[in-house]
Amino acid sequence: MLPDKLREKCGVFGVFGHKDAATLTALGLHALQHRGQEGAGIVSYDGKNFNTQLSLGLVSDHFTKTSVINKLPGDSALGHVRYSTTGKTLLKNVQPLFADLIGGGIALAHNGNLTNGIDLRNKLVKEGSIFQSTSDTETFLHLIALSKEKSILKKIIDALYDIKGAYSFGLLTKKKLIAIRDPLGIRPLVLGSLGDAKIIASETCALDIIGAKFEREVLNGEIVVIDNEGIKSYRPFNSINIRPCIFEYIYFARPDSVLGGVNVYECRKEMGKYLAKESSIKADIVIPVPDSGVPAALGYAEESGVPFGLGIIRNHYVGRTFIEPIQKIRKLGIKLKHNPNKDLIKGKKVILVDDSIVRGTTAIKIIEMIKEAKASEIHMRISSPPIKYPDYYGIDTPRKDELIASNLSIEKMVEKLGLNSLKFLSIKGLYNAMGHKNRDNNSPQYTDHCFTGEYPTELVDRDSGNLTTQLSLLNDN
Amino acid sequence: MLPDKLREKCGVFGVFGHKDAATLTALGLHALQHRGQEGAGIVSYDGKNFNTQLSLGLVSDHFTKTSVINKLPGDSALGHVRYSTTGKTLLKNVQPLFADLIGGGIALAHNGNLTNGIDLRNKLVKEGSIFQSTSDTETFLHLIALSKEKSILKKIIDALYDIKGAYSFGLLTKKKLIAIRDPLGIRPLVLGSLGDAKIIASETCALDIIGAKFEREVLNGEIVVIDNEGIKSYRPFNSINIRPCIFEYIYFARPDSVLGGVNVYECRKEMGKYLAKESSIKADIVIPVPDSGVPAALGYAEESGVPFGLGIIRNHYVGRTFIEPIQKIRKLGIKLKHNPNKDLIKGKKVILVDDSIVRGTTAIKIIEMIKEAKASEIHMRISSPPIKYPDYYGIDTPRKDELIASNLSIEKMVEKLGLNSLKFLSIKGLYNAMGHKNRDNNSPQYTDHCFTGEYPTELVDRDSGNLTTQLSLLNDN
Amino acid sequence: MLPDKLREKCGVFGVFGHKDAATLTALGLHALQHRGQEGAGIVSYDGKNFNTQLSLGLVSDHFTKTSVINKLPGDSALGHVRYSTTGKTLLKNVQPLFADLIGGGIALAHNGNLTNGIDLRNKLVKEGSIFQSTSDTETFLHLIALSKEKSILKKIIDALYDIKGAYSFGLLTKKKLIAIRDPLGIRPLVLGSLGDAKIIASETCALDIIGAKFEREVLNGEIVVIDNEGIKSYRPFNSINIRPCIFEYIYFARPDSVLGGVNVYECRKEMGKYLAKESSIKADIVIPVPDSGVPAALGYAEESGVPFGLGIIRNHYVGRTFIEPIQKIRKLGIKLKHNPNKDLIKGKKVILVDDSIVRGTTAIKIIEMIKEAKASEIHMRISSPPIKYPDYYGIDTPRKDELIASNLSIEKMVEKLGLNSLKFLSIKGLYNAMGHKNRDNNSPQYTDHCFTGEYPTELVDRDSGNLTTQLSLLNDN
Amino acid sequence: MLPDKLREKCGVFGVFGHKDAATLTALGLHALQHRGQEGAGIVSYDGKNFNTQLSLGLVSDHFTKTSVINKLPGDSALGHVRYSTTGKTLLKNVQPLFADLIGGGIALAHNGNLTNGIDLRNKLVKEGSIFQSTSDTETFLHLIALSKEKSILKKIIDALYDIKGAYSFGLLTKKKLIAIRDPLGIRPLVLGSLGDAKIIASETCALDIIGAKFEREVLNGEIVVIDNEGIKSYRPFNSINIRPCIFEYIYFARPDSVLGGVNVYECRKEMGKYLAKESSIKADIVIPVPDSGVPAALGYAEESGVPFGLGIIRNHYVGRTFIEPIQKIRKLGIKLKHNPNKDLIKGKKVILVDDSIVRGTTAIKIIEMIKEAKASEIHMRISSPPIKYPDYYGIDTPRKDELIASNLSIEKMVEKLGLNSLKFLSIKGLYNAMGHKNRDNNSPQYTDHCFTGEYPTELVDRDSGNLTTQLSLLNDN
Repeated sequence: MLPDKLREKCGVFGVFGHKDAATLTALGLHALQHRGQEGAGIVSYDGKNFNTQLSLGLVSDHFTKTSVINKLPGDSALGHVRYSTTGKTLLKNVQPLFADLIGGGIALAHNGNLTNGIDLRNKLVKEGSIFQSTSDTETFLHLIALSKEKSILKKIIDALYDIKGAYSFGLLTKKKLIAIRDPLGIRPLVLGSLGDAKIIASETCALDIIGAKFEREVLNGEIVVIDNEGIKSYRPFNSINIRPCIFEYIYFARPDSVLGGVNVYECRKEMGKYLAKESSIKADIVIPVPDSGVPAALGYAEESGVPFGLGIIRNHYVGRTFIEPIQKIRKLGIKLKHNPNKDLIKGKKVILVDDSIVRGTTAIKIIEMIKEAKASEIHMRISSPPIKYPDYYGIDTPRKDELIASNLSIEKMVEKLGLNSLKFLSIKGLYNAMGHKNRDNNSPQYTDHCFTGEYPTELVDRDSGNLTTQLSLLNDN
Repeated sequence: MLPDKLREKCGVFGVFGHKDAATLTALGLHALQHRGQEGAGIVSYDGKNFNTQLSLGLVSDHFTKTSVINKLPGDSALGHVRYSTTGKTLLKNVQPLFADLIGGGIALAHNGNLTNGIDLRNKLVKEGSIFQSTSDTETFLHLIALSKEKSILKKIIDALYDIKGAYSFGLLTKKKLIAIRDPLGIRPLVLGSLGDAKIIASETCALDIIGAKFEREVLNGEIVVIDNEGIKSYRPFNSINIRPCIFEYIYFARPDSVLGGVNVYECRKEMGKYLAKESSIKADIVIPVPDSGVPAALGYAEESGVPFGLGIIRNHYVGRTFIEPIQKIRKLGIKLKHNPNKDLIKGKKVILVDDSIVRGTTAIKIIEMIKEAKASEIHMRISSPPIKYPDYYGIDTPRKDELIASNLSIEKMVEKLGLNSLKFLSIKGLYNAMGHKNRDNNSPQYTDHCFTGEYPTELVDRDSGNLTTQLSLLNDN
Repeated sequence: MLPDKLREKCGVFGVFGHKDAATLTALGLHALQHRGQEGAGIVSYDGKNFNTQLSLGLVSDHFTKTSVINKLPGDSALGHVRYSTTGKTLLKNVQPLFADLIGGGIALAHNGNLTNGIDLRNKLVKEGSIFQSTSDTETFLHLIALSKEKSILKKIIDALYDIKGAYSFGLLTKKKLIAIRDPLGIRPLVLGSLGDAKIIASETCALDIIGAKFEREVLNGEIVVIDNEGIKSYRPFNSINIRPCIFEYIYFARPDSVLGGVNVYECRKEMGKYLAKESSIKADIVIPVPDSGVPAALGYAEESGVPFGLGIIRNHYVGRTFIEPIQKIRKLGIKLKHNPNKDLIKGKKVILVDDSIVRGTTAIKIIEMIKEAKASEIHMRISSPPIKYPDYYGIDTPRKDELIASNLSIEKMVEKLGLNSLKFLSIKGLYNAMGHKNRDNNSPQYTDHCFTGEYPTELVDRDSGNLTTQLSLLNDN
Repeated sequence: MLPDKLREKCGVFGVFGHKDAATLTALGLHALQHRGQEGAGIVSYDGKNFNTQLSLGLVSDHFTKTSVINKLPGDSALGHVRYSTTGKTLLKNVQPLFADLIGGGIALAHNGNLTNGIDLRNKLVKEGSIFQSTSDTETFLHLIALSKEKSILKKIIDALYDIKGAYSFGLLTKKKLIAIRDPLGIRPLVLGSLGDAKIIASETCALDIIGAKFEREVLNGEIVVIDNEGIKSYRPFNSINIRPCIFEYIYFARPDSVLGGVNVYECRKEMGKYLAKESSIKADIVIPVPDSGVPAALGYAEESGVPFGLGIIRNHYVGRTFIEPIQKIRKLGIKLKHNPNKDLIKGKKVILVDDSIVRGTTAIKIIEMIKEAKASEIHMRISSPPIKYPDYYGIDTPRKDELIASNLSIEKMVEKLGLNSLKFLSIKGLYNAMGHKNRDNNSPQYTDHCFTGEYPTELVDRDSGNLTTQLSLLNDN
């Protein structure tokens, strides 16, 4: 029932030095809602105490109320959104996490995933640390708390040396708002300003919503410390090239965001154009899988000259699921989320464009729908290469054996999906669309292991089999 | 904060003869959600009792739970969705309404508006009827209850002779599901089938969601009675030409619905094409106001050859409003719902396409947004004529003095909205796009008073000043 | 699980002429909470509109919130509490009911029961009245609405002539607060004052809670009209002797209330004394069934000289029930509500005192409990006569065949309950305790049909078999 | 608004080896509800995972639902109830607390208070422990987690050596249910059995509710370990005499509980008798302050021969408070909780009996109430000595300067409260009532510092001023 997409796990937003810090944070999180719909949280600091509001569900379900915002006084705030799962959702895992350190409180929000989080957790528990969540983020918090360094900055650097993986952290202390990006800059993180106030955000669209100015990206391996004296930058790691996750461009980031100096909508349109160049075909209409396939389909249509048409209409009211009551009438062809625009499709040779295929479950339904609407032929075009490898950096991917492209050849996929043809954008086409001549195989410009299998960091937990370890004996209720 | 659109007041859906009647009705209402987001209700009949579930909010907030559906057993069901207002929402006005008549129970769901509802209500109260809601729908229920006729069908016809205005009714009794459309067929209503079960629905998209087959439209002035013996049709009024509301085609109906044999998406694209024919201009990009302006903008771009681009990105997570906490920071240029795709707009001569302008409040913000994104010029094109007159047939229109086109000339509107130019589709262009050579002024093909001021029925309550009467002394809490 | 007691069906409270009318009404209803725990409602009039808040559950669950009280502005208010049932609870039956009459709004709260309510309802539905509740109270509202009289007072009198049974009504109109008591004065109703404000209440304890002064009882067959000009009294019926329900004295009324000039606690203690006089026995300890048996047990102990002891401790935190989870461990001797004070009971000859036995279900458990605590003998004494006949005047009684005293002789009851002896207070003793020499069989001083079978009014619905009629085809969900 | 009583802070209940462990625990907590109304929690172990349900409010608000109980599968369970405060209530402080230790999970429930809890917390935070609650209980959990011992039992003993104060702990691990009582046995804790299942509980009334058998008290300084092999006892401390808190007998424990072999109700009655012996006076009626003063008043009446009467009626429906709406009408003499039985009091010389006076705020209202009811004289008798010193062992006492007996002589209290006379039970009388000849001043039989100022343990936090330390920078929302 959920869209068959990879899912980003989180978004981070923080404000320093604005009297409406919590309201701005709520708005920023709302703009980042596509990065996580499971839960949202905000911590503010009011000069004396930290204040926190954590909730399951959408930002707009909870943080639209004055009564909630009034519980978050202060000039600085840090917020977080989490992804939505089909399984159990846990309030205890909603971030920001908070800890009282000896020098004062600290709040922590995390986008990414540690590849040695479970290994570290096991060691910490052995030493007597008590974990409250099952998130890898808490590991980092315990490392900070246990550091014997004096200053909070040095404690953080101490802790950073222990962790591996992808992380964009926001931290809030009594005096500082801190932004940290991992040595490869896998997950995005940007700095902005609103008058004298400073902002950190996962994407620029969260600056736009509050009318803030984009200042710059947080660099890979950089610690940015914002306090009353201004902004200081620290780079505790050896300098290496940035290697952001290519999937932010393909699917995760909002089309109106600018990442690494590039407009996301334009990238996607370019991917569509390169897709048309690589695998054009004569047809009557280019139909996007809404909404994610629209920019690539527009690019494809523009490049190919085949007319663009909204052949599938999406019901935007879905929100909560109809899973339960529908189960008993599942045999009916329920068109809960998408409905074909039959008059547009009937008798047409259709090019169906989407940005990616994961399991293939949505594609199979969409294709069936278009067939029922009596298309004469269906040719699917995907504006990214086949996804063959799982992610360990903060994207919710299915197991390798569930990835359709990991298990089937393109010919078999054509057969299984019931298509007339199926083409994916090539790795080269993808890098071209991003403005590069080609992938630099010695030092790839992007983190692209889902297509290539080349993981940019150690995978400690995976290699030690820790991924299947039970993190807590306490059940999720 | 709400979109500056006319709003449809309701949608109706009913099932007769299917063991999952309530689930199907929930799905049908979900497909009709765009016709009303304030509240939803379902009444089912289980062979012995009627069962009812009414709730404020979206269909998917309430009717997705098995526990709710289980309270609605039976083979027949009737459902309703209501529009969302900025003001108070009232559970007591959520439909279907129910009454125990002497011969058995009756449930009633209504899309439309009676133009003499208040006049009738006053008379009924004088005679001793006790009203529970403030809706005009209850008037019809009391008229049925008070009829001295014997059969339920004759009671209904008796009551129909008293009411004026626009109405598409669904009624459910112990043995029958009944569909009624007013003599002019102003609001839509269609019949469908799912195996042996019969369906009534405001739009065909609600048939599609459950995989039902479209059978035919309910005719203007027709009473369709569905029972175990089949379908019977009654036409108690003198025969006149159908005259459906043109706004269903322009904005209300879902683009994947077929109304009067015409695909709504195609109509809108045609309106965009005729708009381009009438008022073309050289430009760099055609940008739709999302989502309603997209089909017309695609038509405009196709006809004019100017490239189409998603220059404004809409946040689909809005749902609940951020009104309260934002008020104190309103001075900031909060971009809650729409964000410009700056790189697409910068330095460009923009054609901005929308389907209508009501008050102009949204347009003014969108235009300002595009200016901030540094467009070189902005030319707005509206794919319908100027709205100058209020509606009394079930559309929630503002007062005449709030309609921008009712108060300002196009030149003044250009000035007020800060545009380089502004053009509306002509009445002729609108009828052309609908496939007619021209408007037949003697017997217009559509109800189009919002543009022309020609109301197709008596307006009893308006003419007697009843519209400002307080309907109940009981406050809305 | 519920106590095996007859249950009073309602309580009424109203305020006229006080700026905190709703708050005072909430407090008054709280003091009357023992008269109904299913639901509570308040209607206020603010000089322009009526405002209403109805809720299931206790008064203190809903009406303690400023946000709720603030929705009830105005100088006059009317409130109601309803009884709690084991079955479904219905918000639509929570009173006060409200209707817009032609001359203005009217709110109605009722304590009692009409013995021809269903007969009248059937006639009204036949004539076209639409009922929203299944309560007999709505019948009276329709009769008022349908009256052709001009003034509200005359409409009310018109309607009163049609109804039979027991009723204490409170009504609130734009200008008046009205109190009505049936010709026999079966249910209580009193007048009070708080400064210039006037109060109506079911019992004097509701005057005490707000510090109001008791003025007088509403007389049997009296209509008291309170408005800005003062208090007027009307007596539209032929004068007959008052005949209040004896059960108010035995069990319903709060012990600190004064009814008919008599302190309820003292009555109950007197009943205990007469019980001791009639059926004394040598014993070690007098133990009350808490809390209702305490006053009678104190009287019994005082009269008999046997020491009084709290041999059974009641857990006052019950509130919501533990019915569901306990069912599977029912075989265990769960002592949810009562626990024996074993050290007090062990080896003692116990006199167990309660005010009444209905089904005997509680008694049987209490007696078993005392046995387990190793009493040497158990002698039960009941401070009222055996209940043999059901009530039709607003008391929730079980069917006749569920009344233990209606089915078993005292000897059989002794056996079934596992007692050493069982004695009830005699009719004569009861009347003695109330200060009368004896029951006046020609014109009994009290409504006492539960003991005697002498019903003081016609029982139209019972005699016509209407009691089993389904009042609505709409299910209770 | 809250009763002016010392408040017990907690109750503990645990089950080992019963398939309905969670249901039994819910019932046990319900019986212990008087020991804490703020929040309740249950942890169960199902053989694989621990499961937890924590909630604010009463046990019966949450744990009566099958859906909740079903989330607590398993044969062993541990539960806890917490006290209610006037201030903020915190879900994070609701127990049992849970931690994943390296050897498995552990749940902890605590009744009592550590007198060096804050000192220990500060040290632990300095070392890098992250606290989630502000309760002293979590300190003990961290000490266990940090112990370098191997077995859970040795870890616990390790941790016990660090803590001081009053504690009755329940702990649940994968294989064991553990009960621990501090070296002085200040707070109660008992063992019971139900068939083969073993029970631990704060009071015997919690055994009674489930029909369990009382086995014995946990001894002072004892660790009782229950597992599949049976029950083992450990006594890691030097042996000293038990010294239970006298206030359990005076007020906290339920009257049907047996503590230290003594029936609580009988103790209280004895205290009333000794009070009558010490300070008798001629009078017309003995009136208890309900409900706590009833047993002492019965004893007083029995000893003195003055008749007992329920002169003050308590409304048992209070539950939630009416604080908000009443504030504006506070000047009225609102009798929310108590109402005088005027007819009983008028013209009488009244002896008013209560078990204790803390601030005097309730007493002053009750006395005023009795005066308004026109008593001729009011003589107050308190069945315990004057409370002059605060508690640090798990009783919620006000600051010393708020204790009326700490600040005023008895003469001044008579004056302030508006009494004719006031007498307290003497220390000697109290010990006599408990069955002792006198207080053994060298080794007092009870913890009685509230009267004597003799604290039985070190008060580390108080002496170091730690009591005013802010435990967390995170605000309570």
